[in-house]
Amino acid sequence: MSGMKPFGKLVSFEEASRIMLDSVPPPCVETVPISGLRGRVLASDITAMRDVPGFRRAAMDGYAVAAQDTYGASGEKPAALSMGGKIFAGSVADAVVDRGCCIQIATGAPMPSGADAVVMVEETSVYDDIVMVRKPVYPGANVSLADSDIAQGSKVLSAGSVLGPGGIGVLASLGMDSADVYSKPVVDIFPTGEEIVSPGGELGPGQVYDINTYTLASLVESCGGISRTHPISMDSGDALRGIIGGSDGSLLVFSGGSSVGERDLLAGVVADIGELLFHGIALKPGKPTLFGRVDEKFILGMPGYPTSCLVNGYVLLAPLVHKLARIPHVVHTVQGVLSQRVVSTIGRHHLMMVRLEGGSVIPVFKESGAITGMSSAHGCIEVPADVECVEAGSTVSVRLF
Amino acid sequence: MSGMKPFGKLVSFEEASRIMLDSVPPPCVETVPISGLRGRVLASDITAMRDVPGFRRAAMDGYAVAAQDTYGASGEKPAALSMGGKIFAGSVADAVVDRGCCIQIATGAPMPSGADAVVMVEETSVYDDIVMVRKPVYPGANVSLADSDIAQGSKVLSAGSVLGPGGIGVLASLGMDSADVYSKPVVDIFPTGEEIVSPGGELGPGQVYDINTYTLASLVESCGGISRTHPISMDSGDALRGIIGGSDGSLLVFSGGSSVGERDLLAGVVADIGELLFHGIALKPGKPTLFGRVDEKFILGMPGYPTSCLVNGYVLLAPLVHKLARIPHVVHTVQGVLSQRVVSTIGRHHLMMVRLEGGSVIPVFKESGAITGMSSAHGCIEVPADVECVEAGSTVSVRLF
Repeated sequence: MSGMKPFGKLVSFEEASRIMLDSVPPPCVETVPISGLRGRVLASDITAMRDVPGFRRAAMDGYAVAAQDTYGASGEKPAALSMGGKIFAGSVADAVVDRGCCIQIATGAPMPSGADAVVMVEETSVYDDIVMVRKPVYPGANVSLADSDIAQGSKVLSAGSVLGPGGIGVLASLGMDSADVYSKPVVDIFPTGEEIVSPGGELGPGQVYDINTYTLASLVESCGGISRTHPISMDSGDALRGIIGGSDGSLLVFSGGSSVGERDLLAGVVADIGELLFHGIALKPGKPTLFGRVDEKFILGMPGYPTSCLVNGYVLLAPLVHKLARIPHVVHTVQGVLSQRVVSTIGRHHLMMVRLEGGSVIPVFKESGAITGMSSAHGCIEVPADVECVEAGSTVSVRLF
Repeated sequence: MSGMKPFGKLVSFEEASRIMLDSVPPPCVETVPISGLRGRVLASDITAMRDVPGFRRAAMDGYAVAAQDTYGASGEKPAALSMGGKIFAGSVADAVVDRGCCIQIATGAPMPSGADAVVMVEETSVYDDIVMVRKPVYPGANVSLADSDIAQGSKVLSAGSVLGPGGIGVLASLGMDSADVYSKPVVDIFPTGEEIVSPGGELGPGQVYDINTYTLASLVESCGGISRTHPISMDSGDALRGIIGGSDGSLLVFSGGSSVGERDLLAGVVADIGELLFHGIALKPGKPTLFGRVDEKFILGMPGYPTSCLVNGYVLLAPLVHKLARIPHVVHTVQGVLSQRVVSTIGRHHLMMVRLEGGSVIPVFKESGAITGMSSAHGCIEVPADVECVEAGSTVSVRLF
């Protein structure tokens, strides 16, 4: 016996995706300071515990007035108001605006009682203590109400929101210096195989540099996960068992060791100490991919060939990390015209890397190990399992990376 | 005299953008380990110093053969080849395949001499030491050449490339454990004003929480900069001079203190100790924005009102940080139908925040302080300075945030 055995029944790409995403458990929650919230996902709704701004305030630099004192004012016939003081932002608003008077006020400063509008400084001239107003204002002009931005008790953000500048601003406006968000999934990346050497090392005969650790780590980080890289491990069952047992990550990603070669032991180890959920996808590239679970840890075995590994990373790992992180996985697609005929394999869902040039879709596939093709690719076209070829000139949908 | 004075001549939005972007000096360069290269910008071209993979290798698990030994093979009449050994990935390829023989080979393993093709394991059956091949292969089938991925001396990546998984993979494939990239710009963010309090603190009368520090910091980080936040400073010329003198950032962003109120001293300080490049943009919101330089440091004074500040952040600060970081600033736009009439101000370029619902473009502008509107906005529509209103039902272009 040779020790090599063909794959059993392959699962479809759709089925593999479904199995992976359906396996994902509820995420943990942690409290994170406001300065670290960018890109994090709110674990609960945010209900305002106060009004914002909390007091009636000037929305412009100018003069707080009783609006009716300005009615009929014009450049020729300005309204003359006597100046009764100044209110800066942050001041206590204990001043009162009497009829015929005004108070100089800065943007954001609390409105004095008696005033119901602010005349912009640009619409005025000042002579000693007299402010000449050249344009009437309506009641409420350039004034923000106490709950004009946020009313106490209103829901301002929903659980599941991914926090960007706007959402972080809402939390700050309520005085929150931290928020409860979902924990980032920790993804351990394990390169395997005696043929690979870490960049910076010396290559022996028949050896190549480890690429997958770095492509997968950057992909995991860009999907909101924490990637942990590890030394290259040997192809042995004991080594794999030790690695799996010793990790406390949410997801363990192996590159290499997931095919049916004699040294491809990962499937057997996972089946032995946990549950193998699938092994082999009707996908090209990506047939040797496997997925399983050992205790609370998920195991994803990916092809060792760098391009296969990274394409599978985009279509299988990225959605999984996003789901673990509770970040919506949005697939962006653009339409274009295929520049040349491409031939696929009946029975396998084919992912074909392409570049976009103008409206043209140009295949960049050289071979499954060609990382340079990968780096120049903008995305891939998907040729379903029951389609054998796509003709040049066809309009195709490109799944952007 | 009141101490308030109107703005001088306003610069246009386009002119302000041009002044800011034209001011940017060449970036510094630093060497960063491969694990930290995600999103970084290459400072020089990368030329391959070696072939990749560097040797002829199997692209599939199977059997290394002389292709002509398989010609005419079929399921009914397989070619019988005697097995001459095994080659694993990482092995030294000292074996030789004689005619009528084959050697078991793993994906990525070096091809033995005498073999010019690999028969996939799925196309074979094994009986003792005899491998039955059911399908012919052509010379070169499932074999990668020594320079099949990268040929020594070829340019594989260009200066200015933003590194993602593919580009990082190319560096790894060449054995590079670090690369020279542009340094991230350090952006110091200084909130000013006696009316603001850091989140987590207690509000006094007339006070509001500091929002801008956190919205701007997250925006800077998302544009590839390093943000440094600082305590709230008072509105005094000496305080501002001390802050500017004490910073070693590339860009100092002040929020608040850039208008023409009596306490808005930043413009005077910058003009005094450096060069004020503009003060006041014909932009709504965003009129009080100022930009200048003190020694090698750029100063951006932004409106204190949170929504004004953040909208200006998207359209002025983000392109500037991208330029400082040498990351292309791509403005994404989508078309939609305006749900209601919007009125603008002649003479000012108006940025109007909107939400997208289906194909509908819905203004969310409440007032310039309304941070909740900001958090639900998907982008803004721009109403040029010479347009007074846009009618409901018009097709408009939304600049996405």
